[in-house]
Amino acid sequence: MELETYLKKTADEVNSLLQDCYGDPKTALSRAANHLLFAGGKRLRPALFKMAADAVNPGSSARIMPAGLSLEVTHNFTLIHDDIMDKDEYRRGKKTVHTLWGEPVAILAGDVLYARAFHLICKADAPEDAKVRAVSLLARTCEDICEGQQQDMSFEDREDVTRDEYLDMVTKKTGVLYGTAAAIGSLLAGGSDAQVDAFYNYGCKTGAAFQIQDDLIDLLESSDKSGKDQASDIREGKQTLIAITARERGINLGPWRRLLDKEDIASLIAMLNENGVIHAVQQEAEALIGSAIDGISILPETPEKRLLADLAWFFIKRDY
Amino acid sequence: MELETYLKKTADEVNSLLQDCYGDPKTALSRAANHLLFAGGKRLRPALFKMAADAVNPGSSARIMPAGLSLEVTHNFTLIHDDIMDKDEYRRGKKTVHTLWGEPVAILAGDVLYARAFHLICKADAPEDAKVRAVSLLARTCEDICEGQQQDMSFEDREDVTRDEYLDMVTKKTGVLYGTAAAIGSLLAGGSDAQVDAFYNYGCKTGAAFQIQDDLIDLLESSDKSGKDQASDIREGKQTLIAITARERGINLGPWRRLLDKEDIASLIAMLNENGVIHAVQQEAEALIGSAIDGISILPETPEKRLLADLAWFFIKRDY
Repeated sequence: MELETYLKKTADEVNSLLQDCYGDPKTALSRAANHLLFAGGKRLRPALFKMAADAVNPGSSARIMPAGLSLEVTHNFTLIHDDIMDKDEYRRGKKTVHTLWGEPVAILAGDVLYARAFHLICKADAPEDAKVRAVSLLARTCEDICEGQQQDMSFEDREDVTRDEYLDMVTKKTGVLYGTAAAIGSLLAGGSDAQVDAFYNYGCKTGAAFQIQDDLIDLLESSDKSGKDQASDIREGKQTLIAITARERGINLGPWRRLLDKEDIASLIAMLNENGVIHAVQQEAEALIGSAIDGISILPETPEKRLLADLAWFFIKRDY
Repeated sequence: MELETYLKKTADEVNSLLQDCYGDPKTALSRAANHLLFAGGKRLRPALFKMAADAVNPGSSARIMPAGLSLEVTHNFTLIHDDIMDKDEYRRGKKTVHTLWGEPVAILAGDVLYARAFHLICKADAPEDAKVRAVSLLARTCEDICEGQQQDMSFEDREDVTRDEYLDMVTKKTGVLYGTAAAIGSLLAGGSDAQVDAFYNYGCKTGAAFQIQDDLIDLLESSDKSGKDQASDIREGKQTLIAITARERGINLGPWRRLLDKEDIASLIAMLNENGVIHAVQQEAEALIGSAIDGISILPETPEKRLLADLAWFFIKRDY
């Protein structure tokens, strides 16, 4: 199956399962908790969970799928809390939970999803010891995600963030949940320790590359295409891998923060291209993807193994 | 052993275990997460966990104790998030996490504790299936606690809260975590389903009574003794069981919200006593305690069974 078809099919399946589990909210708080979860999204983490399960044990994913929702629910919990911290008004084209219900309810709505995430793992039809390991792994990952978000916020007050600090931050903020999605999928499906580790690393690396690609899209893609404000990272002085690589090459992006119209952006991109900054950042993302795919070479040959390679490249080939 | 000695000993043990687990925080976020957790507290939930474990399987609690910390950690997570919502500046005589570090870090600090709570259950030396059931139970309880906090906040805009709504709210906000502490203790120690259920109900009822006692302390105890602002619930127009019972008897506490000095408070208490309100509320708390103790009569006779009865009465005999 083509990756695009696979992702579309999985998203439909996830939406239908979410409807079965939470489609009939009984309280105001449940409705707030459902708001973002039912607002779509690519459902990439459950897709990764499914591929990993079927890659180590063909056909196993259906049996353990409730746990696959857990990763999507975890992701949505972090988004609700992040939106409060970042004071973001919109997400997936809808008003954010705290904008609609206020901060107290939004904090609680995130907390409700957090609980559901752990509950969903327990509902999988899988060996009990695997479920306990999955819960441990998800817990460690949630702690890492919080650390990543905290690092990201602390970077706002700094102009000297290093490459290693940046990569550690994006790995925690974005990578580990992809890693855990793949690891838990393979774990509950009966994968070996080596397979589970390989999947965890695959997810961490592709997730970090995904975030680097996000930085590239912010600078390179027009607002029409990306749906976001072009070059907003530059204007906000964000410590992205682009800014860090530029600084390493003696380029100060500070003066570019003001008056960045379309022509300015074009000049900035041209200048960064001349200095090899964009290329270097793209190479870093590609190296992460290459290494992620290398790591899962230990898997038997299955259609899912090919999908996993396609998914990894998709993470950095997308332009939105 | 006397209850007081038992609680003191358990608090020391909990503090020492917390020190072993989290005493060496590596990041700013970990320090924020530790702040309230290391600020003392009675550690009643781990004590209840221990009693329940040893009541069904003497001597078993030491083996599964990491999971006992889980309930204390969960409690602290909810306090950090509640303090943000309620804009409280002090807790346990210390500045609250959001006052010291700001709201974004406080949200994350609570989220870190939330993750640790689930991780701690997995670390217990207990059968894997019991740990999975314990994780499920904790997850359901966390969702209930959020609902309870949401109900509590929504009551602020209402003056017609019923007795049943109030009891449902305090059971969710306070009772279920006591219930889960006792249930998980007995579950991981190998208790039967009937024992686990009895413990859950015991905790829900004693926890609800604890909250009713809190309402009584707010009105009846001087600020010197309770460390809290006397009659603040009345001034804030809170829907406590006192206010609800008064309303049921045709007494409107509205006019008492203003100008409540020491003499006013004394007159109010005298009036409520004359109308049997205080007595009726005390009876409601006592009935809950009696029913909680009845429920655990199925347990074998052990020192812990006696301690559990003492603890239940302690919940409504304390004056702070």
